[in-house]
Amino acid sequence: MMMEHRWTALVSLLALLMYFWMGLQVARARGKCGIDPPAMTGDPLLERAVRVHNNTLEWLPIFLVSLWLFAIYWNELVAAGLGVVWIVGRLIYSAGYMADPGKRSTGFLIQMLAGAVLLFGALGKIVYSLATGGI
Amino acid sequence: MMMEHRWTALVSLLALLMYFWMGLQVARARGKCGIDPPAMTGDPLLERAVRVHNNTLEWLPIFLVSLWLFAIYWNELVAAGLGVVWIVGRLIYSAGYMADPGKRSTGFLIQMLAGAVLLFGALGKIVYSLATGGI
Amino acid sequence: MMMEHRWTALVSLLALLMYFWMGLQVARARGKCGIDPPAMTGDPLLERAVRVHNNTLEWLPIFLVSLWLFAIYWNELVAAGLGVVWIVGRLIYSAGYMADPGKRSTGFLIQMLAGAVLLFGALGKIVYSLATGGI
Repeated sequence: MMMEHRWTALVSLLALLMYFWMGLQVARARGKCGIDPPAMTGDPLLERAVRVHNNTLEWLPIFLVSLWLFAIYWNELVAAGLGVVWIVGRLIYSAGYMADPGKRSTGFLIQMLAGAVLLFGALGKIVYSLATGGI
Repeated sequence: MMMEHRWTALVSLLALLMYFWMGLQVARARGKCGIDPPAMTGDPLLERAVRVHNNTLEWLPIFLVSLWLFAIYWNELVAAGLGVVWIVGRLIYSAGYMADPGKRSTGFLIQMLAGAVLLFGALGKIVYSLATGGI
Repeated sequence: MMMEHRWTALVSLLALLMYFWMGLQVARARGKCGIDPPAMTGDPLLERAVRVHNNTLEWLPIFLVSLWLFAIYWNELVAAGLGVVWIVGRLIYSAGYMADPGKRSTGFLIQMLAGAVLLFGALGKIVYSLATGGI
């Protein structure tokens, strides 16, 4: 595996950097609202930042596992490209949600589509490969 | 690694599909209760669906890492079989919890046992292998 | 990959064992406070235990992915050593937070530094390798 899949690795780390930045957004919201841990509620700004961060966490296992399995069992560069779409969708989702929870849908749909193509693409390729016994 | 571990990959993706469905269960509960994001509480139905989804998220790192390390360092098909038990336990847990939080234990124990065998199996094999210097 | 990266695998499983123990800490706090699921709030002890567990979950994708990519693309033993620092930082964080949320910073900074070195180390190595076309 050494030195293979570097584009997949790069996209994974960029997604995690974006996710880390969403955690900083929670910390900033705490500062603005004056709400200390362990409280997670009490102000719409904090609650939105927490949901953006947490919803991204909720999707990370789906995204990361599907990204790598798509890259390994099918196509590295297509996987990396879909991974970039996922990251962009997540950034649009964050900007929309922080402005107004009703504006979270566009970005959410973009990242969901990218995630679904990765997941069902990897699943389809693996099932086909197991069914036909081929590679 | 190309084309190895396809059963492990298949079980991983099936577990993530089940987990995605639990996310849809949260969205359905929001619809029934009329509670919009970012609120995560306010109705027992929503709170149960959120906990089923989140508790599964909490276990996914333990499950996925242990599943793959068991498959790679010990036995692929045993790992995949335990993975199926984990998924079935999670489905029983979800059905029980949604009916009544007091009925969440059976499914929880099933998935915990499957997860523990995967984790301690992988750990034991790796420690043994490091200690003896063998493969 | 067979039998490579055993130290990385060992550290991953130890981190997950520690994380599992943090889940038990939540269950113990529930018992002491007499607060049943699906409630996640209502007593400072429970809320602290929940945050220790959940904050560790929030960091697990960053930690696990960066740990493995650092080990695969750069250096196995350095990655495993930084992983041990991360685990120790998390244990200090947990002890501090449970005593008083204001005392969570020391352990948090230790694990954040270890995580940042893993993430930016892996990222730097991969970008350099892609840019130079070398290994």
